[in-house]
Amino acid sequence: MADVAALAGVSAGTASKALNNTGQLSQETRDRVRRAAEQLGFTPDARGRALSSGRTYTVALVTTDSTGRFSIPIMRGVEDVLSAGQLATVLCDTRDDPLRELTYLRSMVARGVDGFVVTGRRTEPRPPIDVPLPVVYALAPSSNPTDASVIVDDAGGATAAITHLLSLGRQRIAHITGPVNHRSATARAEAVVSAAGDALCGEPLYGEWSERWGRQATEVILRQRPDAISCGSDQIARGVCDRLRELGHAVPDDIAVTGYDNWSVMAMASRPPLTTVDPRLEDLGRRAASLLLQAIAGKRHRGVLELPARLITRESTLGA
Amino acid sequence: MADVAALAGVSAGTASKALNNTGQLSQETRDRVRRAAEQLGFTPDARGRALSSGRTYTVALVTTDSTGRFSIPIMRGVEDVLSAGQLATVLCDTRDDPLRELTYLRSMVARGVDGFVVTGRRTEPRPPIDVPLPVVYALAPSSNPTDASVIVDDAGGATAAITHLLSLGRQRIAHITGPVNHRSATARAEAVVSAAGDALCGEPLYGEWSERWGRQATEVILRQRPDAISCGSDQIARGVCDRLRELGHAVPDDIAVTGYDNWSVMAMASRPPLTTVDPRLEDLGRRAASLLLQAIAGKRHRGVLELPARLITRESTLGA
Repeated sequence: MADVAALAGVSAGTASKALNNTGQLSQETRDRVRRAAEQLGFTPDARGRALSSGRTYTVALVTTDSTGRFSIPIMRGVEDVLSAGQLATVLCDTRDDPLRELTYLRSMVARGVDGFVVTGRRTEPRPPIDVPLPVVYALAPSSNPTDASVIVDDAGGATAAITHLLSLGRQRIAHITGPVNHRSATARAEAVVSAAGDALCGEPLYGEWSERWGRQATEVILRQRPDAISCGSDQIARGVCDRLRELGHAVPDDIAVTGYDNWSVMAMASRPPLTTVDPRLEDLGRRAASLLLQAIAGKRHRGVLELPARLITRESTLGA
Repeated sequence: MADVAALAGVSAGTASKALNNTGQLSQETRDRVRRAAEQLGFTPDARGRALSSGRTYTVALVTTDSTGRFSIPIMRGVEDVLSAGQLATVLCDTRDDPLRELTYLRSMVARGVDGFVVTGRRTEPRPPIDVPLPVVYALAPSSNPTDASVIVDDAGGATAAITHLLSLGRQRIAHITGPVNHRSATARAEAVVSAAGDALCGEPLYGEWSERWGRQATEVILRQRPDAISCGSDQIARGVCDRLRELGHAVPDDIAVTGYDNWSVMAMASRPPLTTVDPRLEDLGRRAASLLLQAIAGKRHRGVLELPARLITRESTLGA
């Protein structure tokens, strides 16, 4: 530590503050000390640091479903921000089992983690976790509206897709989506109905999050003679494109198609590639981690923060 | 702790050993103490435990690619075994960046982790990491053959698919796979050539891991009049099925198709659903974590452990 301080041209106390992220120092001083530490290959002993500061510089990431493709990019965003701040991310996969979750929470509190990020694969509000530490919820908000939650603006994303279709001159817009008991399906469908207005063609068709449902629903919806089909997911949209092609309808010349998720495996492999809504889940994870760092530092955010989704335009609406 | 010992009917020392996974105790005694601790909601303070044992009961999971669908099930398996053993899994996503990896390794050693599991998305041997702690490699083995590595028997998996096709009476078997510079492609292709023998129809076609390549390669391979097409991945196999259907060939009546990966998004959504090889990556992660626990306990495994893949039969070879 003395060598680091000497190389950075600061006192040992300042070097220690810079490396431990404490005290009032300019960003320039912190950076200089960190560069010096990096140059000398110096790593503070984290256990010693934990003892002297009472902190472990560790955050627990609680996920109900680590195989889900929704929690993966969120995890990545969380880990990205925390590792940049020298905090370790401990993975807790509860497998959607409340008892397993409880065991984890106890164990992590006993380990002295500094806080929790809670995420999952659904967007329904979830019961808050009962821990005496800072918590931020990502994707699924806490059912307690004063807890800190970061969610995607699903309605805004669905509206952007419809606005895009209307701007292309489409006048008969149908909507095919997932299960009626999924908030992500209903939130998007309600936004579609509202944004499409008189251009709405038939009622939203609720079903399942699958290509098969997309193919089946296409046959039903064609009776309404739509010139655009907005879908609640990329899987559904891919099924829609496949069945339209099989039935001899050109996408987008006869019927434009939009998806939701920007899941590359579906959106890019679809024929044609899908115009879709990207919920920017990695950003969601980053934002949740930043809020948690602020909360750990004593500046606690309260309430739900809604992040914008982004429309990605491709051949399924624009043509080749 | 005294209450736990009393409820379990053992001494405080025995209860402590049982909860800290130390000493020579019967499994039955350990279980009894754990049940008592669970009943009383007792969680030992992990930091106190770390100080008294010199261990942190934490393992670092180093992955080159946490968004990859290969490392996800491995992570899940690792976390499953470690959490059952009361160890925390710390996530280190190196983004395939050697400098980032080095920073992580230093930071984790400074934190006093008990060991490392290293995984990634490719199956090529990788350089060993330089840490003074137990390490187990999963999926991509260490290039040092005396390190502990757990890998999938890719050749065995590919052979099982060919044996299945031969047992169904197929006599002209073609192979379409990924890039020639990917070990997973070449290892499977070599096994296919060897297992198919005289039934091999044309040389293996190397390309990319995509549906599009599957569709393109199908047109090429049809000139050889195959009655079966074995594919190096489910994505390729799905593209093959799509193009065969579009060209009027029935799967499997005219041509049987097999995939590789058992990636449900591809294997189940394919028309028809794919007979494929499941590399059992979650098991791979579990096995790696078990070997690491043994190494931490002083029983170090040396060398490469190859786990069997499993053939899953579905409509693309068996019919409806």
